[in-house]
Amino acid sequence: MLTNVDLSREVAKAEFKRLKGDADLKLADLQRQVKALGIPVIVVFEGWSASGKGTLINELILPLDPRGFTVHSASGPTEEEAFYPFLWRFWKRTPTRGRLAIFDRSWNRRVVTGRVEGQVKGKQLLQAFEDIRSFERQLTDDGVVIVKCFLHISKQEQKRRFDTLRENVATAWRVTKADLRQHRRYTEYLAVAEDMLTETDTDCAPWTVVEAHDRRFATLKTFVTVIDALERGVAAAGRKSGEPPASAAQPVPAINAFKTTALDHIDLSLSLTAEEYADRLKMAQTKLRELEHQIYRRRVPVVIAYEGWDAGGKGGNIRRLTQNLDPRGYEVVPVAAPNDIEKAHHYLWRFWAQLPKAGHIAIFDRTWYGRVLVERVEGFCTETQWRRAYREITAMEQQLVHFGTVLLKFWLHIDPDEQLRRFQQRQEMTHKQWKITDEDWRNREKLDQYRDAVEEMLHRTTTPYAPWTIVESNCKWYARVKVLETVCEAIHQRLG
Amino acid sequence: MLTNVDLSREVAKAEFKRLKGDADLKLADLQRQVKALGIPVIVVFEGWSASGKGTLINELILPLDPRGFTVHSASGPTEEEAFYPFLWRFWKRTPTRGRLAIFDRSWNRRVVTGRVEGQVKGKQLLQAFEDIRSFERQLTDDGVVIVKCFLHISKQEQKRRFDTLRENVATAWRVTKADLRQHRRYTEYLAVAEDMLTETDTDCAPWTVVEAHDRRFATLKTFVTVIDALERGVAAAGRKSGEPPASAAQPVPAINAFKTTALDHIDLSLSLTAEEYADRLKMAQTKLRELEHQIYRRRVPVVIAYEGWDAGGKGGNIRRLTQNLDPRGYEVVPVAAPNDIEKAHHYLWRFWAQLPKAGHIAIFDRTWYGRVLVERVEGFCTETQWRRAYREITAMEQQLVHFGTVLLKFWLHIDPDEQLRRFQQRQEMTHKQWKITDEDWRNREKLDQYRDAVEEMLHRTTTPYAPWTIVESNCKWYARVKVLETVCEAIHQRLG
Repeated sequence: MLTNVDLSREVAKAEFKRLKGDADLKLADLQRQVKALGIPVIVVFEGWSASGKGTLINELILPLDPRGFTVHSASGPTEEEAFYPFLWRFWKRTPTRGRLAIFDRSWNRRVVTGRVEGQVKGKQLLQAFEDIRSFERQLTDDGVVIVKCFLHISKQEQKRRFDTLRENVATAWRVTKADLRQHRRYTEYLAVAEDMLTETDTDCAPWTVVEAHDRRFATLKTFVTVIDALERGVAAAGRKSGEPPASAAQPVPAINAFKTTALDHIDLSLSLTAEEYADRLKMAQTKLRELEHQIYRRRVPVVIAYEGWDAGGKGGNIRRLTQNLDPRGYEVVPVAAPNDIEKAHHYLWRFWAQLPKAGHIAIFDRTWYGRVLVERVEGFCTETQWRRAYREITAMEQQLVHFGTVLLKFWLHIDPDEQLRRFQQRQEMTHKQWKITDEDWRNREKLDQYRDAVEEMLHRTTTPYAPWTIVESNCKWYARVKVLETVCEAIHQRLG
Repeated sequence: MLTNVDLSREVAKAEFKRLKGDADLKLADLQRQVKALGIPVIVVFEGWSASGKGTLINELILPLDPRGFTVHSASGPTEEEAFYPFLWRFWKRTPTRGRLAIFDRSWNRRVVTGRVEGQVKGKQLLQAFEDIRSFERQLTDDGVVIVKCFLHISKQEQKRRFDTLRENVATAWRVTKADLRQHRRYTEYLAVAEDMLTETDTDCAPWTVVEAHDRRFATLKTFVTVIDALERGVAAAGRKSGEPPASAAQPVPAINAFKTTALDHIDLSLSLTAEEYADRLKMAQTKLRELEHQIYRRRVPVVIAYEGWDAGGKGGNIRRLTQNLDPRGYEVVPVAAPNDIEKAHHYLWRFWAQLPKAGHIAIFDRTWYGRVLVERVEGFCTETQWRRAYREITAMEQQLVHFGTVLLKFWLHIDPDEQLRRFQQRQEMTHKQWKITDEDWRNREKLDQYRDAVEEMLHRTTTPYAPWTIVESNCKWYARVKVLETVCEAIHQRLG
């Protein structure tokens, strides 16, 4: 969830002032509703040293009634606390109904710091992840609203902040040896944090990654995240008791404006010349043919998943991928709307059934991600169902990877202008007219909704074991070569 | 879940005939409802070789419309199936909505046979348990009803059956080398099966242990288990669609009559003479005092949980346990109805908060099991909540044991006559009158409901890491010495 995150996001001062005022009022109002409804709330802040957790927590509590919340700082178990199981001190601090408990670092320390320092490993680590999921699930089953924010900054930004602090005698003490150790081992911590986010991102207690380079952006994003979670908690409590919400919805900064984006900073100008294309395509295709035989001999299964915008170029891309392959070694699985038999099963059933045998390649033209894309946007499944699906999908992918599968996921990205150009071209050229339907135009009208769904999908399902590759596809040549070379590299890596 | 199971249970021929006829009709009717409502059903049979799975599956399908079910026999992955992740072949076989899939052995093989044969271990094993739970949860979240039966026979009974089969040339082939290997390693398989049951017994897909010495009993128990699960599935589907159940409830063999019992075969005549009592009490108390100092030095936490019938003798028992202890090393935690602050938290919160520090003993006079006893029977929590609680509780206990806690759970068992005698005595003796209230008499009227709750609790929460000890308490002397000696032995074991 930390890969592909655009850390450059900012909010201008004037806009911040305007939005923050609304958010303060909204938050104060929600705190009163939460109290009236007896909803316990937990807000967790994790993130890098010097990412601004302290400042942010101060901002968050300012609009709140101080009688209704407690801030807990978890700097590591005290000598006393080490005499109890690790969740003990957090269980004790779970809030009374109607109150907020705000945690500056939390139980997740155990699977980050504890892991890097070598105290928690192997089976213990798996067990700790399970204990954490069980803890959070028990609380949310009991009506607790859990909000989890991870404040993310780059290594460079962390260095800049440490340097600034250390230049001044008055603040130099704030940079501890542990902070500097974390900085030196940034890459290691990054991998471990990524693992923690993946393993503990659940439908009942999802993570929000907060881009924290710009404090105004980080503050607003945190506010809208908390507001959104509380509003949904209040609505759920209302549904349960059959009462209408305690107050009319006030306008709040739309949460979508602050959602993590992986697509905004994609460079769609990337392209290849005809000559480059011809050379690299041929080279990669030849290489892949060799690898195809090796994976057969070594019995390695390969799954290649294609998703992307309509007219993103999936068909042509897949054709170039398979052009030179031995047809006995691969299969292309086209995925359309489910048929009657498929509808009569779990939505993942048809994909399980079409997994490749060890030693073979399965190429999915559209995938199981339909659940969180078209089914979400078109309302073919409920919100509960698509929210649950992120974890169901990553669980399936984890099982494939544990089995030894090389799993690649490609998002073929084009911009709306390019899409329009291709749509129009399709309508004009007789031999391409079959490719464009009314549905394509209808989908295009919902571009914003689809874009939100795509961003959330890319964010929540980019796992250490199965990351997304975003393929810049305005230039089809570039896209085809990138996919081919990525596939070759991944298989090459896997074969060692 | 396999400990303390009374395998001697039987059903007489005449009664079987009568009940079986009703059950057949009921099952056929439910199959029609399930089909009409589009509920997919999975019935899993696991258990010992020669426990009668095949025969039982034959019985089960006789009353069913053959167009509505499929029987899958999972004797281990074929060469072909081994080329896929282990859940693949089961995902493929998940039933269409409205159909039944019956599995003769299942995905659980991986964590039993696979584990004993050393193919699955360490992290892989934990991962496999998680994959199984995730698989079952995904299916039940999607509306599948999962029924899981484990057919249990003793080593002796297994031998008897193998011998019978081998005596006859016509049947000798049915006893395979693998069967005989399982028989020789019965104890090892037992421990591994117990682990599997504990790790995969969830609120969405609970296990039923079927006592399989008597085929009539096993058959009826399986029938009522399947009927009960289908009825609840039909009711849930009805609630969802807002429709009344498709047909009026017909009388079925009460499921309670077939529930696994740990209490029925407890020998309550066990007793001690005054002299034996005095000797053994003193010896154990002295021993425990020594151990108390050792656990302090070694920083081992000890949790002793008391549950039992009203007037079961908890108070006197705890007094004898602590009589000779250093008061700085232990604490008795009396558990009454939760106060306002406690009610404003998760029900486990107050117990987490009162856990002993490493090196100390906490003795709970009544415990977290109130959730599945008094709260269940008196309706202080919903059925969803108490069904969920078994796993929540075992998760907590597992965390304690992983931390190094010695955890002991005692059920102080007396029979209803003895309880009545003690109640009357309390009313007659002035200095004991405070001990008896109207509530005690009211609870006594609900003895059957309490007994069902107690049996289910003992069954579902007897885990390899935290088993229940049932204490025969008609003779208080015997009970006190048994608890003391059990505690000494467990601490002694732990200190090594």
